[in-house]
Amino acid sequence: MPAIAQEAASGRVLTLAWMNREALEKTVQSGEAHYWSRSRKKIWHKGEQSGNVQKVNSIRLDCDNDVILIEIQQMGGIACHTGRHSCFFQKLVDGKWVEIDPVLKDPSEIYERP
Amino acid sequence: MPAIAQEAASGRVLTLAWMNREALEKTVQSGEAHYWSRSRKKIWHKGEQSGNVQKVNSIRLDCDNDVILIEIQQMGGIACHTGRHSCFFQKLVDGKWVEIDPVLKDPSEIYERP
Repeated sequence: MPAIAQEAASGRVLTLAWMNREALEKTVQSGEAHYWSRSRKKIWHKGEQSGNVQKVNSIRLDCDNDVILIEIQQMGGIACHTGRHSCFFQKLVDGKWVEIDPVLKDPSEIYERP
Repeated sequence: MPAIAQEAASGRVLTLAWMNREALEKTVQSGEAHYWSRSRKKIWHKGEQSGNVQKVNSIRLDCDNDVILIEIQQMGGIACHTGRHSCFFQKLVDGKWVEIDPVLKDPSEIYERP
C-alpha cells in the first residue's frame, strides 16, 4: 500500500513509496522507514546506500486501512534519488511542469561506490 | 496514480486518492480536486455530495512522474467520509491502531439526502 513520508519539522511531504506488511513491521521494529520496492521486488531500507535514512516519529493509517502516513526526520536532508530535499520538486505552472527545488547534492556523489 | 492532498494552512495530509489524466485535467480546469474512483470506476468531484470540496492552490509531481501532491484548502474542514478532518486519524500506539482524531460531524448528517 502507498506510504507517505512527511517531514516532522517542515511539514513537507518528501516521498511516496510502498509498504507491505513486512516493510511496515521492519519500520516499526527499527524506527527507520522500510519500503517494498516494486521494481526490485524486495524490502528496501530507505537510505541504506546513501545514508539518508528516515527516522520515524509516528505512523498513521487512513480510514480505509490501505494508506500509511509516517512522520519522519530526514537524515542528510535529502529524500529524493535526484539529490533534492523532496521528490515533489516539479510544480504545474501555466500547464507545464517546472522544476522548482534545487539539487542539493549530485546523485553521483550520493551513490558513488568504492 | 496516487494523489496526496495536503492542507495549505495546517500542512496536514488529509487524503490520498487516485487520479488519472482526466481527473488531473478536471482538477486543473476547475481548481477543485477531482479523483478517479477505483471502486465506482468513474471521475469523482471530491465534495460533490457533502459540499466539502478541496480548492487547489498548487499541484506538484514527483521524480518518477507517477505521484501527484496537491496543496488544498479543505472546505467545511472535513476531508474524510467518517466526518473527520483527515483520513489519517488512526495512529500506531504500542502496536495497536488508536483513533486519535475526533469525528467533527456525523456522516449521516453529511451525506443525508432529501
